[in-house]
Amino acid sequence: MNNLEPALEAWRDIVGAEHVLTDTATLSAAGTATFATASRVPAVIRPGSRDEVQACVRVANEHRVPIYPVSTGKNWGYGSRVPPSDGCVLMELRRLNRITDYDEKLAYVTVEPGVTFRQLHEFLLARKSNLMLSVTGSTLDSSPLGNALERGAGSGPYADRTAHVCGFEVVLPTGDVVHTGFGRFASAKAAKLHRWGVGPYLDGLFAQSNLGIVTEMTMWLAPKPEYFQSCFFGIDDESHLEDLMDALQALQLRGLFRAGLTVRNDFNVLVRMQQYPWEALEGATPMPPELLERMRKGFWKSAWWSSLWIGSAELHHPSKEHGLAERRIIEDALGDKVDRLAFVDAEGAAFSRWDEGDREAAARYFGREDGTGLGVPGDVNIRSAYWRKKSLVPEDMDPDRDRCGVIFCVPAVPFEGQHVLAALEIVEHTLARYEFEPILIIGCISERVVYINVDITYDREVEGEDERALECHDALLGRLIGTGYVPYRLGIESVRLLPEPYDDTGKLLGALKKTLDPNNILAPGRYGLGAEVGSEEEADARGRG
Amino acid sequence: MNNLEPALEAWRDIVGAEHVLTDTATLSAAGTATFATASRVPAVIRPGSRDEVQACVRVANEHRVPIYPVSTGKNWGYGSRVPPSDGCVLMELRRLNRITDYDEKLAYVTVEPGVTFRQLHEFLLARKSNLMLSVTGSTLDSSPLGNALERGAGSGPYADRTAHVCGFEVVLPTGDVVHTGFGRFASAKAAKLHRWGVGPYLDGLFAQSNLGIVTEMTMWLAPKPEYFQSCFFGIDDESHLEDLMDALQALQLRGLFRAGLTVRNDFNVLVRMQQYPWEALEGATPMPPELLERMRKGFWKSAWWSSLWIGSAELHHPSKEHGLAERRIIEDALGDKVDRLAFVDAEGAAFSRWDEGDREAAARYFGREDGTGLGVPGDVNIRSAYWRKKSLVPEDMDPDRDRCGVIFCVPAVPFEGQHVLAALEIVEHTLARYEFEPILIIGCISERVVYINVDITYDREVEGEDERALECHDALLGRLIGTGYVPYRLGIESVRLLPEPYDDTGKLLGALKKTLDPNNILAPGRYGLGAEVGSEEEADARGRG
Repeated sequence: MNNLEPALEAWRDIVGAEHVLTDTATLSAAGTATFATASRVPAVIRPGSRDEVQACVRVANEHRVPIYPVSTGKNWGYGSRVPPSDGCVLMELRRLNRITDYDEKLAYVTVEPGVTFRQLHEFLLARKSNLMLSVTGSTLDSSPLGNALERGAGSGPYADRTAHVCGFEVVLPTGDVVHTGFGRFASAKAAKLHRWGVGPYLDGLFAQSNLGIVTEMTMWLAPKPEYFQSCFFGIDDESHLEDLMDALQALQLRGLFRAGLTVRNDFNVLVRMQQYPWEALEGATPMPPELLERMRKGFWKSAWWSSLWIGSAELHHPSKEHGLAERRIIEDALGDKVDRLAFVDAEGAAFSRWDEGDREAAARYFGREDGTGLGVPGDVNIRSAYWRKKSLVPEDMDPDRDRCGVIFCVPAVPFEGQHVLAALEIVEHTLARYEFEPILIIGCISERVVYINVDITYDREVEGEDERALECHDALLGRLIGTGYVPYRLGIESVRLLPEPYDDTGKLLGALKKTLDPNNILAPGRYGLGAEVGSEEEADARGRG
Repeated sequence: MNNLEPALEAWRDIVGAEHVLTDTATLSAAGTATFATASRVPAVIRPGSRDEVQACVRVANEHRVPIYPVSTGKNWGYGSRVPPSDGCVLMELRRLNRITDYDEKLAYVTVEPGVTFRQLHEFLLARKSNLMLSVTGSTLDSSPLGNALERGAGSGPYADRTAHVCGFEVVLPTGDVVHTGFGRFASAKAAKLHRWGVGPYLDGLFAQSNLGIVTEMTMWLAPKPEYFQSCFFGIDDESHLEDLMDALQALQLRGLFRAGLTVRNDFNVLVRMQQYPWEALEGATPMPPELLERMRKGFWKSAWWSSLWIGSAELHHPSKEHGLAERRIIEDALGDKVDRLAFVDAEGAAFSRWDEGDREAAARYFGREDGTGLGVPGDVNIRSAYWRKKSLVPEDMDPDRDRCGVIFCVPAVPFEGQHVLAALEIVEHTLARYEFEPILIIGCISERVVYINVDITYDREVEGEDERALECHDALLGRLIGTGYVPYRLGIESVRLLPEPYDDTGKLLGALKKTLDPNNILAPGRYGLGAEVGSEEEADARGRG
């Protein structure tokens, strides 16, 4: 760290002194996530352009000071802005916030890392665009580019964000710049329209890694559908879940549910509606499932979310006739698998299967589909971070600042009923042992795989909770990986739990890191690459093996 | 090459003497493509397992003898089996021909490089599978794995083959082995179901490159649809093409035509039906478009392929009702853009727009949709390679052996009418100048890009034709690239025509090649990587820059 001062000097020359921050409040905030972390951040730098990013990276090399780049830094539940290793200078890219290209007909935008969902949404609104964002459940101030690089799942037909972005501009750890796909040729007219380009396809190197800083990316956008409906279904009995998952997989393989399908449990519904019932439970934790069951069967009874597991899907169609044809297929396939099933469009709710007596109330809750699901970002999901807090949910939610405890653990599981059940069994058993509620979403992200989103939620203010939550996370991830359900994404604290590859992939990744980042200055340790700072000879030996 | 003998000795020990071939007939065949090539092949080796591939690669390193791996080697039109540089030993992987995994429910097969389309088709037939192959227009003896690595376009809903494969097993140029995606963890249950895995995504490194030998790959398969129809349309006037392309793009963006859409010109239709009309033209070339126009308006008149440009699409649906809903959308959108439009299903042809007098004849030509389009590989397209031959098309077609001249040139062009027209203008002008017929397919491979397949076809037996065809190819590719229409795929002779990247991508690719293949023994020069054999210092200097 004795190199820090001269590096700070050099950075001040590049980005201006006002964009090099070392005050205690800033550094403390930068080092705070939604769970306990150990890394200290010695400074924050905020370059304002790609040229400045390049120059800053060269300084990091010259002085051997590692940097940790974030777009807007809202990686809540996975480590927020906190670097995975100590002493990294935080490079915030929020000032690179230009939307540099937009094409309504070919349906894309090109964005920098600091562009937020809010900004992009307003941009499209102002142009009366017919295109829609694939949004997340996170804050409107998070970065579409950052989310795509972490391979976060979105909503709508382009929910698999990774499959709908291209044309990265990347500052390499040496300060060099590359463009992926056709973009390396100045004249190429398909650079923003085609993912593979010609020759090897390099986008994958720069996602979930520390091999480059992506300073621009093209995101494809889906058009708003001519006809839109939501589909809701529910089961009351856990023993029906296996059959349901198999039926959903078969439908998805046939091309249904292309625009997003999730199945949530009752706790996941609850934490979006209210905070922990401290009074009713006289301060005791965890909340017993029996209480929630009584709520479901009692005053939730006629609400549409009264099921144990609740499915919801957005259905996008090029015509109403097309939508009704798909509706009939879903009715045929799910009719005898669920306890209730309804479709909601602009005209109201249609009940394919629903208790006669509850329909009126359910119709009131459903209302009409007003299209708010069509790419409008919202932050209702973030309320769940405050589930165990004893203070009310504030207007401007900030889980880092408010010491909300949130750790995500999201295994990728084969889309088969028996696998989903096996993974849930591990999840529910482990959470119960550590006394956390099972707050779960099964994200049906493709015809072949689901992500089971486990949300360990607690209050960091409560003594011992930070430790217990991390222990729970480690035990859970360990058991899931041991059974073969590997997470699709890792928080800064999770990488160490991955097993060693049984082949030579570790050696290859080490060699790639060494080639692209010879001084290991870029986010050392992120996703396990360049973890051993200082042991360059050893890394070199491995890389050349 | 003085290292060759000891290398051959070592390879004989590994694979057996009968799988190391050096006889003149074999080497001459191995060095023959569908156009003039210069590289000589000093030996052919045929390992029989992944272990043998690894051992062979280590021998190549030890003796510094470069190798050129091919799956089944049917890369016709792009260089067949011929290495891009002189003195490469050809490594044929046809003996690695196992189908190592198959899952009907999760809809995938896992294959080795020597597995052919024919073999995979018969495999699925024998199991009465409901899954279908995404086939090519090439021979049944070509390799699905090889085609996927070259990013060839297929048919059906998984036509974008690159987006529907995962879990590569790769022998690196050093002899190490890696597995992409989740496959690097021995226990991972989603390794064949998920493309990205966790951490950086490496599949892209091994496609259109020379950074590894893929010895196994999982391919996802689409289920056969509940309802299947073909859609045919045509225009008679070139001036309607721009509008038509724009209408097709808008439909594709809305989610129509998910299972393949191509638009062919009249010459493309002709070369599949007959050979060159040598007698009618008294031996003169090229065939004048006016003659073909007379054919279209004369004895083709009532045939469905009588248009100047002919569109065809396979439509896959989960129900007939769904299919009819999409049919109506297509009718609404294309009705006033085309001169004829018909749909064919198992019941027969339905004419949305067609000359009344021609319907009966067209219905006879169309017949009933019998489902042969549903993943059944066929080789009718290969007949076109014999277009300019004076001998008849043989039963067992082999364009390499029969000295057919075929060079493909396939630019990626934005899916906009004006761009398609601009690219076609270049193509048609250049082909006319070099006296070749324009044999063209516009492959509408996504909502944003088309591939324009240009097929330069000639007879290698005719003196001077080899040279003229290559000159034509070079002139064409040069003009296309200069205008920004970069090819999506390159033949061995085409790489040299790519411009230098305007950024640092060339340096990065050089460094990657150097890291993965320090002795440059794997397919040096393929896709431009490791082109300068022997200049290791220079490559090193670039790689470390």
